[in-house]
Amino acid sequence: MMSRLAPRWPAWLFWWRAACAQGVSAQQRTWAGASRIPGPGGPWGATGTSPLVRRGSSSAPSCAPEVMLTRERYSVRRLPFSVVSEDDLAALERIVPGRVVTDPEELEAPNVDWLRTVRGSSKVLLRPRTSQEVAHILRYCHERNLAVSPQGGNTGMVGGSTPVFDEIIVSTTLMNQIVSFHNVSGVLVCQAGCVLEALSRYVEERGFVMPLDLGAKGSCHIGGNVATNAGGLRFLRYGSLRGTVLGLEVVLADGTILNCLTSLRKDNTGYDLKQLFIGSEGTLGVITAVSILCPPKPSAVNVAFLGCPGFAEVLQTFCTCRGMLGEILSAFEFMDAECMKLVGLHLRLACPVQESPFYVLIETSGSGAGHDAEKLSGFLEQVLGSGLATDGTLATDQRRIKMLWALRERITEALSRDGYVYKYDLSLPLDRLYDLVSDLRARLGLHAKHVVGYGHLE
Amino acid sequence: MMSRLAPRWPAWLFWWRAACAQGVSAQQRTWAGASRIPGPGGPWGATGTSPLVRRGSSSAPSCAPEVMLTRERYSVRRLPFSVVSEDDLAALERIVPGRVVTDPEELEAPNVDWLRTVRGSSKVLLRPRTSQEVAHILRYCHERNLAVSPQGGNTGMVGGSTPVFDEIIVSTTLMNQIVSFHNVSGVLVCQAGCVLEALSRYVEERGFVMPLDLGAKGSCHIGGNVATNAGGLRFLRYGSLRGTVLGLEVVLADGTILNCLTSLRKDNTGYDLKQLFIGSEGTLGVITAVSILCPPKPSAVNVAFLGCPGFAEVLQTFCTCRGMLGEILSAFEFMDAECMKLVGLHLRLACPVQESPFYVLIETSGSGAGHDAEKLSGFLEQVLGSGLATDGTLATDQRRIKMLWALRERITEALSRDGYVYKYDLSLPLDRLYDLVSDLRARLGLHAKHVVGYGHLE
Repeated sequence: MMSRLAPRWPAWLFWWRAACAQGVSAQQRTWAGASRIPGPGGPWGATGTSPLVRRGSSSAPSCAPEVMLTRERYSVRRLPFSVVSEDDLAALERIVPGRVVTDPEELEAPNVDWLRTVRGSSKVLLRPRTSQEVAHILRYCHERNLAVSPQGGNTGMVGGSTPVFDEIIVSTTLMNQIVSFHNVSGVLVCQAGCVLEALSRYVEERGFVMPLDLGAKGSCHIGGNVATNAGGLRFLRYGSLRGTVLGLEVVLADGTILNCLTSLRKDNTGYDLKQLFIGSEGTLGVITAVSILCPPKPSAVNVAFLGCPGFAEVLQTFCTCRGMLGEILSAFEFMDAECMKLVGLHLRLACPVQESPFYVLIETSGSGAGHDAEKLSGFLEQVLGSGLATDGTLATDQRRIKMLWALRERITEALSRDGYVYKYDLSLPLDRLYDLVSDLRARLGLHAKHVVGYGHLE
Repeated sequence: MMSRLAPRWPAWLFWWRAACAQGVSAQQRTWAGASRIPGPGGPWGATGTSPLVRRGSSSAPSCAPEVMLTRERYSVRRLPFSVVSEDDLAALERIVPGRVVTDPEELEAPNVDWLRTVRGSSKVLLRPRTSQEVAHILRYCHERNLAVSPQGGNTGMVGGSTPVFDEIIVSTTLMNQIVSFHNVSGVLVCQAGCVLEALSRYVEERGFVMPLDLGAKGSCHIGGNVATNAGGLRFLRYGSLRGTVLGLEVVLADGTILNCLTSLRKDNTGYDLKQLFIGSEGTLGVITAVSILCPPKPSAVNVAFLGCPGFAEVLQTFCTCRGMLGEILSAFEFMDAECMKLVGLHLRLACPVQESPFYVLIETSGSGAGHDAEKLSGFLEQVLGSGLATDGTLATDQRRIKMLWALRERITEALSRDGYVYKYDLSLPLDRLYDLVSDLRARLGLHAKHVVGYGHLE
């Protein structure tokens, strides 16, 4: 892959488990076309590419006037699907009356991904309200051989949520009803189009939290979170969606409704088919409803921010932290010195500790504020005393906590102000994680303005 | 199902999420035949039955002289598989030299389940050491149309690990090697035949624990745990195997080795095929290796034992407990008064609190002994003060902890001394859980000596 890089990229970025990147020009980004092919084996006849390439993405600056059509930019070919006719529109109107969008202006946004790297030319968007309507739509499209592109909040970083050609967009925007919430078990059942932040608010008012949290929470839909098996900031504490998603309702391509919407914490009846849909990015069916287990809301949250002399010390700090903080550890994020420099330069955020080669943000969430603060203090004494960290600060109030989190959460923003960014979401064995950054830094030399690394350890 | 009960069962038992039951006579237990059919749609031509029935099991007292052959006891018919010939034995001997068992005495134990309810008549048991050998065996059997029954520790409660007719038993006993363990991440990779207790010891010496624990840990194989999606005593704290199993190696029926043995905590590359094998009970392939995430070992463990005036209070205690103990709560078990009576009568175990309609055992596991004890005391004050519990006791030393756990763990033993037991492993919504016991108690009246309920809330 490296051999295809042109020698002009100003910024490179590796993000351990969440990523985005900006490229130089359309011509130089032809390989990125493969990255937007939805999930494992989408319906489009694109040429194969390595998993690394497929997981990356690129973006032009947000001021770009017009996004080039995907079909013109990349070597993808339209498969022989039918073209939407007037009769089709009339039939679809009967299925979702008043919710068939054909206005070109209204269709502009859903045809483009939010990183503005790809653009489809869909001429129809449908807004079903129920699973039955989704089923009718898919059955009709299946019979008529019409291509469909399901869309949630359209917040994905790899262009998987926008059409490539003239697919019919099936939007989950109006499927935003909470079906039930159980105050004892914390089991939430809702439609796929519920916005993550709205769900968070809803369950937090009832003493629970959503088991996942993302930067895009204000727009992303829970159905899309599940379809992409989103990890996010609470992965360390609450684990994968594979454990917290209890059930799914999915409509298959032919319109069959698959009801795996159990609310039991464990259900060993038959094969666990729902697992196939988690992370399958809409290639196997459209997720229409989700049953998810919400953990109780922690009553105390603390954040520590440390400077570490090397990546080996970051890893050792992680081990020490897991041992001493154990059950209250809810986030462990690292960033390198270059991230911090850029955050300082472009966002005027001050580094709260002495300048160091690496920085670590540790969050605890527990049920006893005093206990948690004591544990954190003990841990800080240990890592500062042993030289694993050279400096550290502790935040227990909401304002300071937000300030420390901003250093980590706003890295992407700082980088985007620095120039074009290529961003990769990679999962690597812990002890080899940072090698990627060092090796690439050595390899690119002056060709890249920055090669930086940050992300979560889990 | 109820209409088929004969009016002579001395004891009935409902176990929330782990079960066993003893019946009166062979004739009366014909329906139980269906329960031993392996997993969802086994190869045997048994008649269909309800999920409830399929999850139950029955057992004769262990002093029973001989277990009747499954094929004679139940209406199952052998499908047209080939019969093992001398040529087959020679071929198998070439695949696993010196590890083809045909001695009838040696075959007795693996032909019978440990509850002694079902018996197969297999004449060959193979002991492969590697996945390649398993692949060769399955490829050969597939080509020769020979039926195969994979077997781990043979500790299952529903007879799914023993042959029904003359299937070749493929035992994982010799596949007991630990492949790797990562001291930072806690990721263990091992062969499927590793005994759970041996793995526990291994990782505990390194500061970690296995994410599951079962009564059968001294014999059960990790491959069988995964194949049956075993829950067990640590489910509340560490969640489902669907989250903690990171990867699997599986040999399909035709001998294809499917390598999904990733060790990454999150891997979104392609479909997560390994999920299909978790809980599929060997019907889709033989699990040969497992990659599993071990959590750090907690440094402090405490147990509280409470008496509650009703099941509604048990549920409210659970809610309070989740709120106040949060991240350190590692087990919440309940048992009714009849369980306690039988435990006292047959095992001479004294009830440590005042007599109550219900009892609750709460375990905490944390990283700070002092903090945990303080949290537990606060919780006890709350539930005793509000009347949710009428009496309670707290154990912080190992001896007392074991004593309290024995009250819950030895219920099965106490019941088996009381008479024949029918035992069901059921998952039900929390607030309707105990209705099953009350309703059945009312329905059976004097026909049952005891109808009792116990198990975990999650």
